[in-house]
Amino acid sequence: MTTDFLPATSFAELTVRIGDLPQFDEEAAQRARARQDCLTKPPGSLGRLEDLAIFMAGWQARAMPSVANAQALVFAGNHGICAQGVNVYPQSVTAQMVANFEAGGAAINQLSKVAGAKLSVIALDLERPTHDATLRDAMSEHETLDAMARGYGAVDPAADIVVLGEMGIGNSTIAAALALVLFGGKAQDWVGPGTGANALGVSLKADVIGRVRDRIGNLPARGPLHILAAIGGREQAALCGAILAARARRIPVILDGFICTASAGVLHRLAPDLLDNCIAGHVGAEPGHRPLLEKLTKRPLLDLGMRLGEGSGAAVALLLVKSAIAAHTGMATFDQAGVSDK
Amino acid sequence: MTTDFLPATSFAELTVRIGDLPQFDEEAAQRARARQDCLTKPPGSLGRLEDLAIFMAGWQARAMPSVANAQALVFAGNHGICAQGVNVYPQSVTAQMVANFEAGGAAINQLSKVAGAKLSVIALDLERPTHDATLRDAMSEHETLDAMARGYGAVDPAADIVVLGEMGIGNSTIAAALALVLFGGKAQDWVGPGTGANALGVSLKADVIGRVRDRIGNLPARGPLHILAAIGGREQAALCGAILAARARRIPVILDGFICTASAGVLHRLAPDLLDNCIAGHVGAEPGHRPLLEKLTKRPLLDLGMRLGEGSGAAVALLLVKSAIAAHTGMATFDQAGVSDK
Repeated sequence: MTTDFLPATSFAELTVRIGDLPQFDEEAAQRARARQDCLTKPPGSLGRLEDLAIFMAGWQARAMPSVANAQALVFAGNHGICAQGVNVYPQSVTAQMVANFEAGGAAINQLSKVAGAKLSVIALDLERPTHDATLRDAMSEHETLDAMARGYGAVDPAADIVVLGEMGIGNSTIAAALALVLFGGKAQDWVGPGTGANALGVSLKADVIGRVRDRIGNLPARGPLHILAAIGGREQAALCGAILAARARRIPVILDGFICTASAGVLHRLAPDLLDNCIAGHVGAEPGHRPLLEKLTKRPLLDLGMRLGEGSGAAVALLLVKSAIAAHTGMATFDQAGVSDK
Repeated sequence: MTTDFLPATSFAELTVRIGDLPQFDEEAAQRARARQDCLTKPPGSLGRLEDLAIFMAGWQARAMPSVANAQALVFAGNHGICAQGVNVYPQSVTAQMVANFEAGGAAINQLSKVAGAKLSVIALDLERPTHDATLRDAMSEHETLDAMARGYGAVDPAADIVVLGEMGIGNSTIAAALALVLFGGKAQDWVGPGTGANALGVSLKADVIGRVRDRIGNLPARGPLHILAAIGGREQAALCGAILAARARRIPVILDGFICTASAGVLHRLAPDLLDNCIAGHVGAEPGHRPLLEKLTKRPLLDLGMRLGEGSGAAVALLLVKSAIAAHTGMATFDQAGVSDK
């Protein structure tokens, strides 16, 4: 039914495959718009909830979209860059938090339960961190494609929406390095406290990502997938794979915070329309998140000062999508209700 | 257990009674704060969700607050000011929409179902609109107190949170007049399209509310309850009564859009701390809503361009409160999960 992009044997092969993507179904969206204008409310009065219903209709290619089968996916990885001392928490916390996800004790467990999303957590070789990107490429092309394929394979083909998140001590530094190399600007524009670094820690992160940029030199000319391999990490690659899997199956995606968004930035640089099926769930407190969303031309649904990751903001945003779909599919029309239109 | 404020026989009697209000329980809030700092996440990383959990704890006077029994209350009324031609829809739509609420066909039916709130709709003498406030006082003191008492009595004493909304053709003009007389400024600062007025209609609304202000002259010196009686309407008075009922029982309240917020403004002018148990659910598209929230020093949870009323934005905001409480009560602590704290 759809092109399977992954696994692929090279970045070049993958890049060719993504030329043939399902697109937004304008006809289904038009039928959804027409329905919105007949529902018992002034036209446009549900604001962005109406936009969300039409977005879902276009991607699901049906005028009455569904969110009955939501999937939340959290990818976890470890990072050699932790050797640079950029983290407040020890690296062992990644595996501890994965165990916490599996035991049901983390924020995303509770938030995905409220939102009615089925949570899957995929730990990616935590015992084998990627290389320190200040010294050498974090991953080989093969390792990067493997992590992408694992993300690709994690998406439930029957899901009607996917919420994406991540966990990995050190990965706010990875995300800042990705943002810097993908989108330019100054190192200090993209760093922030992450899980709680102080001003000195943030300054160290800026120094570290500046060194990553200097090391990889003119690599950006080889393309964003090479940048992803050079910086890491596995969960960032898996997020890209999951977005491609969702796109291949016309499944809408809700992106989470700065780290998730920076990962998606790899695909944006590959081809901006690769993220057309993605919603920015929220803008978080990490200072790089807002300018990054501007680079992706995504307007966030929520602005709650969250900075946890794990898909937490995206899971809360899923509730807005559910509200939008409930209104869209469940409301009466003016005719049905016998309410006078103007 | 609590002071019952209403029914009261006069505004003066009511004003005396509200001097003795339950206050935010700082001790319960402190225990909730301490719990937040032990949960398996960096402190503060859930942003406003943490603030919401602490707010709920303080008002419900327990460290582990609940949202298992949410109530959505929609008050409907009709307004003599419709004679001034300020509306796009005919006044008969108010009763038609009440029938639509009762049949389950309106936006608030779907949104309160998603949010798990039990919806009650209270139609307030729809066949008997209040007087045209450009010509004479919309309601007598007795009628105002009666509508307030009906709002007061509508709150379920067993509710753990209340979502408030309204419906009434003409009531964006009523709300704009209330905002103008309660908070000053220019007539055009407080008017907007409402359910869909064009530029000419908005200009007419500004003219109409200016005439209301001029008619009531120096009445404001007699206090905000007299302003409420002079301008109307019944659903605005009922909203005030419902807020007082919730406050008397330590029940947190989520306010909806411009009209609901303007009604709450009456209580704010009576005593600013009367709204301490109220959350601004959202800021809507009606242009007066944002400055009005600033007058009440309330920061909205959502900004989705909604402008429907009915409690629709507040019902969506309830989902954020539910998320906050689920994380607060359901997450593991660092100790419980065996996760290393920094």
